[in-house]
Amino acid sequence: MESLTKIEDLGKPRVVIVGGGFGGLELAQALRHAPVQVVLIDRQNYHAFQPLLYQVATAGLAPDTIVSPFRKILDEQENFYFRLAEVQAVDTEKQLLETSIGMLRYDYLVLATGATSNFFGDQQMQQHAITLKSVSDAIELRNTVLSNFEQALQLGDMEKINSLLDFVIVGGGPTGVEIAGALSELRTHVFPRDYRELNFKEMDIHLIQSGPALLKGMSKEASEKSLEYLKQFGVQVWLDRRVKSYDGYTVTLNTGEQLVTRTLIWAAGVTGSPISGLRPDCLLPGNRYQVNEFSQVAGYENIFAIGDIAAMKSAEYPEGHPMVAQPALQQGKLLGHNIIQHLAGRPKQPFRYHDKGSMATIGRNHAVADIKLFGQDLRLNGFVAWLAWSLVHVLSLVSFRNRLLVLLNWGWSYLSYDKGLRSIIGSSKPLVPLEQPHEEKAVT
Amino acid sequence: MESLTKIEDLGKPRVVIVGGGFGGLELAQALRHAPVQVVLIDRQNYHAFQPLLYQVATAGLAPDTIVSPFRKILDEQENFYFRLAEVQAVDTEKQLLETSIGMLRYDYLVLATGATSNFFGDQQMQQHAITLKSVSDAIELRNTVLSNFEQALQLGDMEKINSLLDFVIVGGGPTGVEIAGALSELRTHVFPRDYRELNFKEMDIHLIQSGPALLKGMSKEASEKSLEYLKQFGVQVWLDRRVKSYDGYTVTLNTGEQLVTRTLIWAAGVTGSPISGLRPDCLLPGNRYQVNEFSQVAGYENIFAIGDIAAMKSAEYPEGHPMVAQPALQQGKLLGHNIIQHLAGRPKQPFRYHDKGSMATIGRNHAVADIKLFGQDLRLNGFVAWLAWSLVHVLSLVSFRNRLLVLLNWGWSYLSYDKGLRSIIGSSKPLVPLEQPHEEKAVT
Repeated sequence: MESLTKIEDLGKPRVVIVGGGFGGLELAQALRHAPVQVVLIDRQNYHAFQPLLYQVATAGLAPDTIVSPFRKILDEQENFYFRLAEVQAVDTEKQLLETSIGMLRYDYLVLATGATSNFFGDQQMQQHAITLKSVSDAIELRNTVLSNFEQALQLGDMEKINSLLDFVIVGGGPTGVEIAGALSELRTHVFPRDYRELNFKEMDIHLIQSGPALLKGMSKEASEKSLEYLKQFGVQVWLDRRVKSYDGYTVTLNTGEQLVTRTLIWAAGVTGSPISGLRPDCLLPGNRYQVNEFSQVAGYENIFAIGDIAAMKSAEYPEGHPMVAQPALQQGKLLGHNIIQHLAGRPKQPFRYHDKGSMATIGRNHAVADIKLFGQDLRLNGFVAWLAWSLVHVLSLVSFRNRLLVLLNWGWSYLSYDKGLRSIIGSSKPLVPLEQPHEEKAVT
Repeated sequence: MESLTKIEDLGKPRVVIVGGGFGGLELAQALRHAPVQVVLIDRQNYHAFQPLLYQVATAGLAPDTIVSPFRKILDEQENFYFRLAEVQAVDTEKQLLETSIGMLRYDYLVLATGATSNFFGDQQMQQHAITLKSVSDAIELRNTVLSNFEQALQLGDMEKINSLLDFVIVGGGPTGVEIAGALSELRTHVFPRDYRELNFKEMDIHLIQSGPALLKGMSKEASEKSLEYLKQFGVQVWLDRRVKSYDGYTVTLNTGEQLVTRTLIWAAGVTGSPISGLRPDCLLPGNRYQVNEFSQVAGYENIFAIGDIAAMKSAEYPEGHPMVAQPALQQGKLLGHNIIQHLAGRPKQPFRYHDKGSMATIGRNHAVADIKLFGQDLRLNGFVAWLAWSLVHVLSLVSFRNRLLVLLNWGWSYLSYDKGLRSIIGSSKPLVPLEQPHEEKAVT
């Protein structure tokens, strides 16, 4: 038999949480006074604040300002244990989780593994596209953008220069819209100062959206305003288009149009990250686990799923909740409460989603927000929405330290029109090799 | 013939600087009003403040707070051009520099390539040791320290646990002393909260110094005080010892004593980083270029070397100046002046080193400093030296943004006894494989 992970047995029920995103972390914290042992497993030793990854990718924030180590967040919670490990499978009979550091016994198992990018089986796309789901992704994208310009300086051929200066973003949801806006700010205020030798009129930012409107799921006003703002910032928005193929250089759309870029940013489909060992019929299309209103995975008493990986279908949300932070946070919190209730023999409370609305920022002073406040639908845009967006995001950061640093960075950038994080630290995406730059015709 | 790098020809004399450390950057700035074109070549797109690398390595500062992109530092200097490239060789006949992005013509060539770690030919040591010469090194060391503890949690065997918890630092100069002190602070104030399951009495910090005293080159008082402080902080200092071998697990000293560690930090010898194509006889032992008092490399009129790579011998400094920031800064500044003088047909000024003293911090409130002020030798230690050290280092940072961020981080750490940068972002040093952790006897 395989050996068990070395972890203290507290003689209390053990809640094993797989994944420390919004849902998993909230649950761990909700159990702080519960008579249980909480074991959190994650492949990283930190919680990352995903909504601001795009700012790391566009040189606006340093990685450390949006992450917090789990051990630091929870260092005063006595029943909390952390393990840096990958989960491989679950044995539901023996209540054992198979991980990269051995088998782990559980009483309650909570899957909070989130979602990854979905390339719908297109391996060429997967190989060449850059995604934005993790801190490493964000750092890679930042380094790639900066490296592109350094390389463009050595080229004479205009098409090849454009392949480095142009960016194609696939997906017109919040992430896609926010990256497009941030890149256009860099184009206007930052890069021309850094790269006087390049002509930034040649830098094109393309945003490709499969449907007829941006920010699907938000109000018509928000969709329209975001489109207006992006156009105002010089972003080329391609509605009702899909990317058919991308070979690392040429993007072909389903309409036959072609774009040339070395950098395609994939902010389109996502799919759940399930683990093996559960009954196949509890996994719905999109790789989300079917759960009931208590977050229990279909067919199991003590296995739960929360956040992006969970599809809790209801009349109001027939496809499950949107894959964003709020449902994960609320499900994590309620599950903590329900585990405590269950242990005390008290009745559990069914989940009901409190939609607080959603928002996206396009750039300096420009954002859109659909806010639900006291049962009222508020539609904000422009400077007010941008202030609201900034406030909500700063306050949502996990630690006071990060709030302070982000605020300081933002204040600085706002006043100076600068984004200071332009050092290429770490790796960038390897480009598809074309000719060597210095085979170009020499100018001097 | 190989093609030239694509870079504007301003029709002015071109000064090519290889390396943007203290000397190279200072020189570029000193030439801001000179009738020349300044081209800086570096393998990184940023200047790193090396004296604080050890704080990045010990989770005290984020990498971005001690680096500044060259393009940002110099974005208002019109005669400045930057290229991200590696230099391969020089053709002194044709006045061409061979780089990874093509050939580059120069009128004045300045070598400011600095120094790298010297393992004196011990390849096994080179493979297993961690160095601290670059930002990547510092990030790798930080990640390795943190990963060690995560892995130690899974072990039962005490010797193996110790191999992960114990650290061996080779070299009792400022870097070695400062890392040892910083690790001991983490051991006292930070790690026990993060890793309640580990017994930090088992964490040993060994500092190995080949000579009879620490901080060679500083005053006797500084050597003695630093030894006293380190002992007070529980660092085991091994004087008059050399490391004979290290296989990634066992450190063998020349005295036959053995230590076990997975993490050996090499802060001992350094050697210059020369480039090929220059006359062999201008390279002295230690791989430093022999230069005259105008920083001209022996035998050349228009090739210069400054900083660590230059050995400017004099009666006072028969081996050349110490390989630290001050000589590099002063040589860079004077060379800028002398190039301007030379172009104007005015006499050049010979270099004279103004030793401002040196300092090293051991930990919270504890530092040593030998300061030369108005011709007086000041010997400081304890809190006063620590304040002086902090002040000098903050003020020496390149940008106001970095000064503010470092000050904020230090203030925070000082008040909270915390070091916040404990996220494992990027790679860590791969450990020599031993048995799998989960082959250990299981506890639960």
